[in-house]
Amino acid sequence: MRKIAIIVAGGQGIRMKGSLPKQFLAISGEPVLFHTLRKFNHDGIRIILVMNEEWIDYWNDLVREFEFEVYHDVVAGGASRALSVLNGLQLIDDHSLVAVHDAVRPLVTESLIQELYSQAEINKAVIPVVAVKDSLRIVDGIISKAVSRNNFRAVQTPQVFHSALLKEAFMQEGFEGFTDEASLVESYGHTIHLINGEDFNIKITVPADFVFAEAILLQQ
Amino acid sequence: MRKIAIIVAGGQGIRMKGSLPKQFLAISGEPVLFHTLRKFNHDGIRIILVMNEEWIDYWNDLVREFEFEVYHDVVAGGASRALSVLNGLQLIDDHSLVAVHDAVRPLVTESLIQELYSQAEINKAVIPVVAVKDSLRIVDGIISKAVSRNNFRAVQTPQVFHSALLKEAFMQEGFEGFTDEASLVESYGHTIHLINGEDFNIKITVPADFVFAEAILLQQ
Repeated sequence: MRKIAIIVAGGQGIRMKGSLPKQFLAISGEPVLFHTLRKFNHDGIRIILVMNEEWIDYWNDLVREFEFEVYHDVVAGGASRALSVLNGLQLIDDHSLVAVHDAVRPLVTESLIQELYSQAEINKAVIPVVAVKDSLRIVDGIISKAVSRNNFRAVQTPQVFHSALLKEAFMQEGFEGFTDEASLVESYGHTIHLINGEDFNIKITVPADFVFAEAILLQQ
Repeated sequence: MRKIAIIVAGGQGIRMKGSLPKQFLAISGEPVLFHTLRKFNHDGIRIILVMNEEWIDYWNDLVREFEFEVYHDVVAGGASRALSVLNGLQLIDDHSLVAVHDAVRPLVTESLIQELYSQAEINKAVIPVVAVKDSLRIVDGIISKAVSRNNFRAVQTPQVFHSALLKEAFMQEGFEGFTDEASLVESYGHTIHLINGEDFNIKITVPADFVFAEAILLQQ
């Protein structure tokens, strides 16, 4: 089956001073997104980058300026993550494997990506998960209670699906509220297959994450 | 009330080649534990370091060699985390505030520590928690199901308690299996008060965490 990757770049539409979305900030001298897209640049994967419309010119400037070498399509995002992914899905036929990946997870490895596509051929919906490092509590208003972290897994991306299944899941009422494609597919009634993710495959959010990311990328 | 900190340093008793426990590895040229202990070196806090017996000589050598300046007592640990904490508790009277802290969380701030002690005076059992960054799934054998991460919090240390309460909690049957003092106190019937922790207050585990830690310590 054809392999597709939808890379979801967040970031508010309204430009605010000093608030460049994380995917544009530099790791080892290059925008986070360059590193992320490069991880999918193998095995003929077609890369679709979904990005808020207001940032597309800025992105195209970056690509030109740095002579970024990875071929990809750019699609305008929607008002929520789910609506953005849906915009990407419009470009895809019903006989593909589609990976949905956070733009700010540049540390994923090529081998994890290959493993996910490979398992998704059979299982139709495959996601990487890791053990939860901290103890967990469940909260309800001001009440909270310890739960055993051993019973939980932290979910990462890429999440890989048969495109037909993912598209059907997106036709459910209320789909635009989901922040995680696996939950959406599960709510559609399909079992999610879990495989081991990578502890270092973090979402880049706070400044120190950039330092962490540089260290990991150097090893890779 | 008198302020005490029990710093729990893990590490197997049997020395294995290339497996120096994380608390001895260097951040910015000094062992992790130096940074951790320094964070408690204020407001007259009495520091009790609990460490596997087989590592105590090694630790004392480090302290001498680096002329480490923070005064602290060292107590031999037990076969589990709970047994280690219990060994530390033996040194403490019933009218203190006791913070239990992971040796490998050197990034906690003095101000969070102060806030925890301060709130523990009134609430008797106070812990720092942060939002969960990744989506979560609950697993049961091969079955798993999405849960809303908004309903969960990741638990950090230090966890601060009235010493009398914590000691009573440690008298429950099965206490030695608990890995988190808050769960133990809760199982004893006392409500746990949550305050906001710090996202960067991570447990140092993988090599890249050391790079992250150096970046954060530079800012602090």
